[in-house]
Amino acid sequence: MSFQGEQHPGVQTPTADSEGFRLNHTMLRVKDPEKALAFYSRVFGMRVLRRLDFEEMRFSLYFLAKLEEGEAVPDEEGERTVWTFSQKGLLELTHNWGTENQADFAYHDGNAEPQGFGHICFSVPDLEAAEAWFDANGVEFVKRADQGKMKNVVFVKDVDGYWIEVVQADRLAALGD
Amino acid sequence: MSFQGEQHPGVQTPTADSEGFRLNHTMLRVKDPEKALAFYSRVFGMRVLRRLDFEEMRFSLYFLAKLEEGEAVPDEEGERTVWTFSQKGLLELTHNWGTENQADFAYHDGNAEPQGFGHICFSVPDLEAAEAWFDANGVEFVKRADQGKMKNVVFVKDVDGYWIEVVQADRLAALGD
Repeated sequence: MSFQGEQHPGVQTPTADSEGFRLNHTMLRVKDPEKALAFYSRVFGMRVLRRLDFEEMRFSLYFLAKLEEGEAVPDEEGERTVWTFSQKGLLELTHNWGTENQADFAYHDGNAEPQGFGHICFSVPDLEAAEAWFDANGVEFVKRADQGKMKNVVFVKDVDGYWIEVVQADRLAALGD
Repeated sequence: MSFQGEQHPGVQTPTADSEGFRLNHTMLRVKDPEKALAFYSRVFGMRVLRRLDFEEMRFSLYFLAKLEEGEAVPDEEGERTVWTFSQKGLLELTHNWGTENQADFAYHDGNAEPQGFGHICFSVPDLEAAEAWFDANGVEFVKRADQGKMKNVVFVKDVDGYWIEVVQADRLAALGD
């Protein structure tokens, strides 16, 4: 029998009721979409699958994906929206119109008090190459791979101050031991 | 040529530097892992891929995935950790030891002030069946599919108060029009 999940206090065996559920996206609010989109497209190579505007409520949503090589995305907008909501691991950026022009406006990163949300995480093929790429783009580091207690784990900040963990999967076999 | 992403102010074309980057997980802090694991395993059908304990720093991490039918996960722990960090769309729950015994302790959901993080989102095959399933499990609703301006979009709360959006992809073709 294949691996069915670790057993810990509280864990229950899933039933048919949750069949087909899929963790589609994580939503973060951003102050200035132009800056956020430049950051996530250039530094992390994400594509904008779909922008949705809500004029009456004065906000826009941007759905971003890191597409796999050769992954086929529908051209037609309605089909593309449906495709977008069928994927795993997307990032949704919410822009409430006007915040980009408010000098003192900033969103809360969840790591300062009051705490809650912590970070998103990208895995990368080569951690040192990724660090050099972040440096080349002036990305702010919270910690580098050789700093602190958790070696091989990098944290950077996006342009709104949200933390992004960056790891190389094949160097983490002994994590937590 | 296949779809390469929408063009909006700020968007840049990814370079080879971000090749192989993958959005692996989103981390949320939870007060009581037993309650959070019961919720995400029972209601959303997630499995615990890996628990990592950090005794010196007094916290544990739980990596959860909604596995696809027949998806093969390595049994051996080191291999499974590497596999975990190679996936897309996982949920990481962080438990700082002892918070479960502090009566007044609660994490910040990011939707009350100060705002930042908004929600995670699951897509489901049948939105009404999902609503009935949430009701059968006493899940708290922020809004049902037929409430508010955004029809066909459900929001519920997890046991820490974080918002979870729930959608049925094939009913969203006209969203934002």
